[in-house]
Amino acid sequence: MNQPSTASRKPFRRLLLTGAAGNLGRQLRGALADWADIVRVSDIAALGEPAPHEETSVVDLADRQAVTHLVEGVDAIVHLGGISIDAPFDDLLEANIRGTYNVYEAARRHGVRRVVFASSNHAIGFHPVTEVLDADAPQRPDSLYGVTKCFGEAISRYYYDRFGIETVCLRIGSSFEEPKNPRMLVTFLSYRDFIELVRCSLFTNRVGHAIAYGASNNPVKWWDNTKAGFLGFNPRDSSVQFAERFQASAPSATRDDPAERFQGGVFVLGEPMERGR
Amino acid sequence: MNQPSTASRKPFRRLLLTGAAGNLGRQLRGALADWADIVRVSDIAALGEPAPHEETSVVDLADRQAVTHLVEGVDAIVHLGGISIDAPFDDLLEANIRGTYNVYEAARRHGVRRVVFASSNHAIGFHPVTEVLDADAPQRPDSLYGVTKCFGEAISRYYYDRFGIETVCLRIGSSFEEPKNPRMLVTFLSYRDFIELVRCSLFTNRVGHAIAYGASNNPVKWWDNTKAGFLGFNPRDSSVQFAERFQASAPSATRDDPAERFQGGVFVLGEPMERGR
Amino acid sequence: MNQPSTASRKPFRRLLLTGAAGNLGRQLRGALADWADIVRVSDIAALGEPAPHEETSVVDLADRQAVTHLVEGVDAIVHLGGISIDAPFDDLLEANIRGTYNVYEAARRHGVRRVVFASSNHAIGFHPVTEVLDADAPQRPDSLYGVTKCFGEAISRYYYDRFGIETVCLRIGSSFEEPKNPRMLVTFLSYRDFIELVRCSLFTNRVGHAIAYGASNNPVKWWDNTKAGFLGFNPRDSSVQFAERFQASAPSATRDDPAERFQGGVFVLGEPMERGR
Amino acid sequence: MNQPSTASRKPFRRLLLTGAAGNLGRQLRGALADWADIVRVSDIAALGEPAPHEETSVVDLADRQAVTHLVEGVDAIVHLGGISIDAPFDDLLEANIRGTYNVYEAARRHGVRRVVFASSNHAIGFHPVTEVLDADAPQRPDSLYGVTKCFGEAISRYYYDRFGIETVCLRIGSSFEEPKNPRMLVTFLSYRDFIELVRCSLFTNRVGHAIAYGASNNPVKWWDNTKAGFLGFNPRDSSVQFAERFQASAPSATRDDPAERFQGGVFVLGEPMERGR
Amino acid sequence: MNQPSTASRKPFRRLLLTGAAGNLGRQLRGALADWADIVRVSDIAALGEPAPHEETSVVDLADRQAVTHLVEGVDAIVHLGGISIDAPFDDLLEANIRGTYNVYEAARRHGVRRVVFASSNHAIGFHPVTEVLDADAPQRPDSLYGVTKCFGEAISRYYYDRFGIETVCLRIGSSFEEPKNPRMLVTFLSYRDFIELVRCSLFTNRVGHAIAYGASNNPVKWWDNTKAGFLGFNPRDSSVQFAERFQASAPSATRDDPAERFQGGVFVLGEPMERGR
Amino acid sequence: MNQPSTASRKPFRRLLLTGAAGNLGRQLRGALADWADIVRVSDIAALGEPAPHEETSVVDLADRQAVTHLVEGVDAIVHLGGISIDAPFDDLLEANIRGTYNVYEAARRHGVRRVVFASSNHAIGFHPVTEVLDADAPQRPDSLYGVTKCFGEAISRYYYDRFGIETVCLRIGSSFEEPKNPRMLVTFLSYRDFIELVRCSLFTNRVGHAIAYGASNNPVKWWDNTKAGFLGFNPRDSSVQFAERFQASAPSATRDDPAERFQGGVFVLGEPMERGR
Repeated sequence: MNQPSTASRKPFRRLLLTGAAGNLGRQLRGALADWADIVRVSDIAALGEPAPHEETSVVDLADRQAVTHLVEGVDAIVHLGGISIDAPFDDLLEANIRGTYNVYEAARRHGVRRVVFASSNHAIGFHPVTEVLDADAPQRPDSLYGVTKCFGEAISRYYYDRFGIETVCLRIGSSFEEPKNPRMLVTFLSYRDFIELVRCSLFTNRVGHAIAYGASNNPVKWWDNTKAGFLGFNPRDSSVQFAERFQASAPSATRDDPAERFQGGVFVLGEPMERGR
Repeated sequence: MNQPSTASRKPFRRLLLTGAAGNLGRQLRGALADWADIVRVSDIAALGEPAPHEETSVVDLADRQAVTHLVEGVDAIVHLGGISIDAPFDDLLEANIRGTYNVYEAARRHGVRRVVFASSNHAIGFHPVTEVLDADAPQRPDSLYGVTKCFGEAISRYYYDRFGIETVCLRIGSSFEEPKNPRMLVTFLSYRDFIELVRCSLFTNRVGHAIAYGASNNPVKWWDNTKAGFLGFNPRDSSVQFAERFQASAPSATRDDPAERFQGGVFVLGEPMERGR
Repeated sequence: MNQPSTASRKPFRRLLLTGAAGNLGRQLRGALADWADIVRVSDIAALGEPAPHEETSVVDLADRQAVTHLVEGVDAIVHLGGISIDAPFDDLLEANIRGTYNVYEAARRHGVRRVVFASSNHAIGFHPVTEVLDADAPQRPDSLYGVTKCFGEAISRYYYDRFGIETVCLRIGSSFEEPKNPRMLVTFLSYRDFIELVRCSLFTNRVGHAIAYGASNNPVKWWDNTKAGFLGFNPRDSSVQFAERFQASAPSATRDDPAERFQGGVFVLGEPMERGR
Repeated sequence: MNQPSTASRKPFRRLLLTGAAGNLGRQLRGALADWADIVRVSDIAALGEPAPHEETSVVDLADRQAVTHLVEGVDAIVHLGGISIDAPFDDLLEANIRGTYNVYEAARRHGVRRVVFASSNHAIGFHPVTEVLDADAPQRPDSLYGVTKCFGEAISRYYYDRFGIETVCLRIGSSFEEPKNPRMLVTFLSYRDFIELVRCSLFTNRVGHAIAYGASNNPVKWWDNTKAGFLGFNPRDSSVQFAERFQASAPSATRDDPAERFQGGVFVLGEPMERGR
Repeated sequence: MNQPSTASRKPFRRLLLTGAAGNLGRQLRGALADWADIVRVSDIAALGEPAPHEETSVVDLADRQAVTHLVEGVDAIVHLGGISIDAPFDDLLEANIRGTYNVYEAARRHGVRRVVFASSNHAIGFHPVTEVLDADAPQRPDSLYGVTKCFGEAISRYYYDRFGIETVCLRIGSSFEEPKNPRMLVTFLSYRDFIELVRCSLFTNRVGHAIAYGASNNPVKWWDNTKAGFLGFNPRDSSVQFAERFQASAPSATRDDPAERFQGGVFVLGEPMERGR
Repeated sequence: MNQPSTASRKPFRRLLLTGAAGNLGRQLRGALADWADIVRVSDIAALGEPAPHEETSVVDLADRQAVTHLVEGVDAIVHLGGISIDAPFDDLLEANIRGTYNVYEAARRHGVRRVVFASSNHAIGFHPVTEVLDADAPQRPDSLYGVTKCFGEAISRYYYDRFGIETVCLRIGSSFEEPKNPRMLVTFLSYRDFIELVRCSLFTNRVGHAIAYGASNNPVKWWDNTKAGFLGFNPRDSSVQFAERFQASAPSATRDDPAERFQGGVFVLGEPMERGR
């Protein structure tokens, strides 16, 4: 692990970001510099050159010892690591189940008090598109990937009730540069709003164990964040500016297909995969 | 039935509008031109000259055969037809009960998949003005007219559960040029917002069987559309600009009169009428 | 209308029973003798010889004038009349919609203060068999017949809110001598329990507008009457004694068929019928 | 009691403001001039020179006879009087319990129909900061002071149900010139928004017995006023402009201390006090 | 205070019973002998000769010093004391408000951990007789007496949240030898069931702050104790045996009178009284 | 795998029981003989001699290929297998997470349509003992073991929503010969009632994805099975006969210890364990 050269006075002394080489990890990596003297970034993939304030660490989250080491000395964890698409169960099990256990158990051992956990809309993707969900909506995973996110929500609840480690579970929609299809006009979370949501999750003095949906202020709403109002997340972006790309059309002939009926979109069509074939 | 001369490429091939000669029908008639190649407009009253893209048809909705013919070949129906004020039950029965049955049964026969149904706030008008209702509020009709709207909501639910015909029930407030009395400062739905609400109801890819309230973004709110958020209806107008016409006053001596106590206003004072006297 | 010869002192002076010649009407007809000095029984079919305490009247409920006359002088109405199976809409409209309106409007004119209305489980038959419903469950009619029962619930609500006429809507299950199929093990309402439910509905001093489910104390429960506890209905019978007739079996191959999935059973398979063919 | 010199035509003839010498009373005193011909202001403390439209009256609310006299002839009451911080129970009992009873009982005797009652967020201060409350949240007083506000909510409910006297209970947050600590970024109610909330509570034609939270449109929300939407209160201010004063920081080491865990803040740390020692 | 002569081994060392000379206090006084070595009984009225295991103490609950002394050394308190009918507010204030504060404050000072508080159905008596209430039903006091019971529920909640003193609030119905009128067929709580309810409230290892309704297993139910299931209260008696005394009758002409419409019965007709006249 | 000699006509052709050598598996093994021609019993431990109607198979549920083979040809699965106490996470992961995935994936491949899954009260054990839970209560696992049961509930939901495989999740209390401590007076599920609960779960024609609590009809109730009423589970036993063994006592000094505060009992005190040390 490299060592950052200097450390000025910022709100956090040291933050850990897992999954730093992924799509969202790359977005967040820069922002964390403003919030912590030292940012420890980690991924199973290459992380590039560390900035002066950064510590980089290539770690497989399924490696308990490595994770224990990784978590040492941090004030809070933004846990984006793991597999973020559907994948063979054995892979998901290592990265998202064993990996998340390892992160929480390391947090417990080292006295870390706050985790921001990247859950996913796919934990509730089998709810129909004609329902509006709030934080109390029951889990309806739309894929094995989604099932592992339900696991993450459950284990983080346990570490909160038993050990007082707070977690905000972010049921992130579609966080990309811009919406790529009509469904994403609903689920779009701009990078700026994503970063703001993580900021609120880290800086709110007390969060308990919270569920928050991650979507920008889009015209169509499937999710109602009223019960997470104590986080102070007020998205500033909207998918409305991208709406014209997806030309208004009459309801499609395929509107009864599962991928159109359920919030999870094409995820609900996936099937369990075999590994390595 | 006259025939439209040309048909360019618009989202819908052919839309049917019932009640096209009424107050709201006249507002909507123009807007539909942008959404469909052919707009079939219908009413029991005279409809004037058809525009080039229009088919006009004077039909009594209680006439099953005529309605069956009317619905043939349309992609979706905006059903505003029927009686929209309190009236003798026998008249309401023909126009709103038999008529609505005829529309749905014709839709089933011809494979129409979407109806936008003009329900009314009078389906819930016996709720007090000190309650805020959402889509799950129980029906409380304030008049026989309101009872027939409850019937429409029930039969449309049946055609959805049994035959998959989707309906958005619009519990429309007071859609006029401008509010005419203090109550309408709450229930006001501008024509522009009304048209937008119909647009959302037609273009949302999947709506199931939905209940949506029709009010602009007025300062005082009796209705909460959160559960219809998947429609993407975000009103742009407000009654606030008309507020000064209805001078602020202390609570009136008549505030305990039923017309002041219940959301339905003077409707709650009506009594069943005899026909044709 | 014949005249009863004598009238001793019973709780009610005169009760009206509509639908007295039907399956449930025949059961109730005898019981009413204990509750009222005079029992006025009515049906569109023949009613047989009146007992000494009875007034009989063959009436088509769709005939307003006849119904107005029928209701004159009664203290309360047990309204079982109308069509109690699926039927062509035009028939249902006359018997169940116009007929029920006529009953309530006559009640209003003659100052009757209480109606016991035979609604039906088919007003909520499109709820799945894996849900337990209480009085607040939304209507989900499973047939046009069920839609007319929804109408009855709505119009009775109106007459209560507007004119103070109280109604208990009985969502009756399957009231027969004994269950005829496995579904009826759930929906069975013994005749004795049915009579008791009507008794509670008539004698409870104040009922407002209530929804009560009509089932005996069967082992499997789809309906929860907790919210109607103020009626004091405590069924004494159970379908358990008939269970062995319907041999325990593994889930059937047809368990995903609509008639097995929804509480309404085969009603959910019906289609709108044409009259008189 | 002095007499105002003139009386022009304003919505109310005469309004009574109790607690007029307190922090919020001083804010409101001016505003009332626009709403009533005569403003009767009262406090246990000195009230200064009356304006031409004012009647001033120094009254101990625990003095029944004085309160009866005070209330005579007024159209509505804004009841801010009493003790608004934690205090010995015997003092709270006189000012907030006996005093509030006296106000309602005088209102009943003199036929006053509307009271705006300053309840407090301390009636619900033992709810955790990770919950968002609406009007149906159960009372959780955080202090004996909060308990007396619960009493006020209960007695006002009684006077509404029994005598029809309407009340809006305002669960006021922190209404000061500006937020004084991080907690007040959540609970801040600007003076302007406070006055608007009282205005809505007085001028809405019918309010029944309502619970409304008093907070500006702050970024972090603990309270959801949706169910009070019929009041038309739409705050215009926000604490966001003051946020930078309370520098963003990582969750504090004391975040598990009761004063950080519960909405009531330091109130939850208080203990019953003895009087006059 | 007299001293009991002996003390064998029973679950509690010393229990305090307030209101021991009242109707329910007299019932309970005997039962407590089985539960505690020493039973301290107290009332403002004469208590008769103490049994060998008893300490008697005539105390005015409004006398703080006396109450502090009274509570010293007890393990738990059954607080039935105070005024249990409607009365002038100044009397209710002393006995039920100041008195209950005194009891809780004394409990805090002496480290008492459990109180069983006799609340009353009159805390919720303005709910209509056509509703079934559970522990979450909002307070609707039907009298000033009921308002003081709401106060007791609020202050006991505070002492639980702040100091961990557990309370079971018993919303007692009508606990007499037998029902005295038709309403009591619903609200009847036999003495045996009352004693059992207190027993459950004392012996359940952990109760937090609970609301439980006190009624026997009567045929008609206004209250649903499901949420208090953790107390293990299963009433064994029923009013059914007394039903024939109150002859079945048609709904009375007075069914719309408030005393028939609301659960509180004649209490809802009371008016605030002046003291000492 | 041995082969049963004969196969008479019973409701099921072949049932699979996993965990057959465990405490509950041994109870159920006999009962299954009445329900299926062939009972395939499986465990990781020795299973003893097969009865004539049995197929025995010693299988590690974490072995995918073995499980795929095990599930072939069965009509339904009673999945009790896995670890049923707290254990090192790596062990729980193999047995309860990978194992349960293997069972569902094998069910999918072989077209099995029904699973009865032994979840546990430890999936909700961090709810306080002063709450009564129903099927919609959020998960609050009290241990890593409980977390793996949450996983099982989530993955079974997925296999139902995606592939239509029905599951009843049984949140089993304490199923032993008799209660072993005071807590088990609440959580006790007699063997007879356990078998009945499994029977209902297997024989109910349609169950969807259901949550049912497994407790006998004990005097104290933490769980409310109303929403699972469609299963027809009506326990016949009660812990009441064992109550005297656990002598009634005053609340213990330790009532605030977590093991007394939460439904999970001593499970809430456990800590993550390391494997094999």
